[in-house]
Amino acid sequence: MDTQNVFAPRGGKAEIEEGADFAPKFDADGLIPAMAMDATTKEPLMLAYMNEESLRRTLEIGEAVYWSRSRKEFWHKGATSGHIQKVVEIRTDCDQDALVLMVEQIGAGACHTGRNSCFYRKVVAGTAGETAKLEQTGGGKSFDPAAVYGKH
Amino acid sequence: MDTQNVFAPRGGKAEIEEGADFAPKFDADGLIPAMAMDATTKEPLMLAYMNEESLRRTLEIGEAVYWSRSRKEFWHKGATSGHIQKVVEIRTDCDQDALVLMVEQIGAGACHTGRNSCFYRKVVAGTAGETAKLEQTGGGKSFDPAAVYGKH
Repeated sequence: MDTQNVFAPRGGKAEIEEGADFAPKFDADGLIPAMAMDATTKEPLMLAYMNEESLRRTLEIGEAVYWSRSRKEFWHKGATSGHIQKVVEIRTDCDQDALVLMVEQIGAGACHTGRNSCFYRKVVAGTAGETAKLEQTGGGKSFDPAAVYGKH
Repeated sequence: MDTQNVFAPRGGKAEIEEGADFAPKFDADGLIPAMAMDATTKEPLMLAYMNEESLRRTLEIGEAVYWSRSRKEFWHKGATSGHIQKVVEIRTDCDQDALVLMVEQIGAGACHTGRNSCFYRKVVAGTAGETAKLEQTGGGKSFDPAAVYGKH
C-alpha cells in the first residue's frame, strides 16, 4: 500500500473542517499525537505519536502502531507485552492534527508500569509557595511489568 | 506565583513514574499536549497545548488556559465564546509528558466549528487504491459559530 494513496492532500480550511477527505497534518517532525481511549469505559489509556507510515499500518491491520520517539522505531503496541490495542474507531479533530483511537485494550493494561492506563495520577495544586503534587487515582498495578517486559 | 515554585524539577525514571512530585516535561518548543475530556460523559473534546505559564494559570484559576501555537499567545478557552472549561481534574501520564484535563464544558461546546467536541469525525479506511474517508459521528452543530465568534 502506498502512503500517498491512503491520505488526501491538505485542502483549504472548509475542506479540512467539513470535508470527507482524511488529510491528517503531521508536525515538523512528521508526527501526529494519538490519544488511545478504552472504547467501552472511555478511560484515557495513553498518548503516543504516529508518523504517516505507522498510521497507515494502524489502518491496515486494525491494531495501534505508534512511532516511538525515544527508540526512533515503529512501535506495534503489544508486540512485546501481548497487550495489543484493537482499534474500534479512529477519530480526528476539526483541523485534523490530532487523533483519538477508541481501542479494545487486550491484556492487563496499556502502561509499561503495570497499570491499565498511563494516566494513573492526578495533579493537586500546591498551596502558596509549594509545588504541585501528584496523587494516584486508584486501580494500582494490574500486572507485573518485569514479568511481561523482562528479558528472557 | 513563580513558575519555578509550581513544578518540581525532573527527577530520575522511578521518581517521575512513581513519585508524588509533579514535574511535567515540556517539549523542545516548551509545550505539553493536553487532551480535554468531558468529566461526566468522558467524551474527548479537544487536544491543545500548554506551556509552563499556561499550565500554571490553569492550576491557579481552575479553568483551561492553553497556548495557541498559531496565534502564539495565551488562550484562555472561552474568553471569546463564553465556552469556558472548568477543570475538574488534571491527570498526567507515566512519564509526565502529556496531560488529560477532565473538564466541565460551559456553554454549547468546545469546538470553534459549532460542535460539542472537535472529534466529530471518524476515519473509514479506503478500499485498495482509495484514500481513507471521514464520516461525521453525529451530534452535529450545537451552536452557530458566526454568532458566537463573529466580530461585533
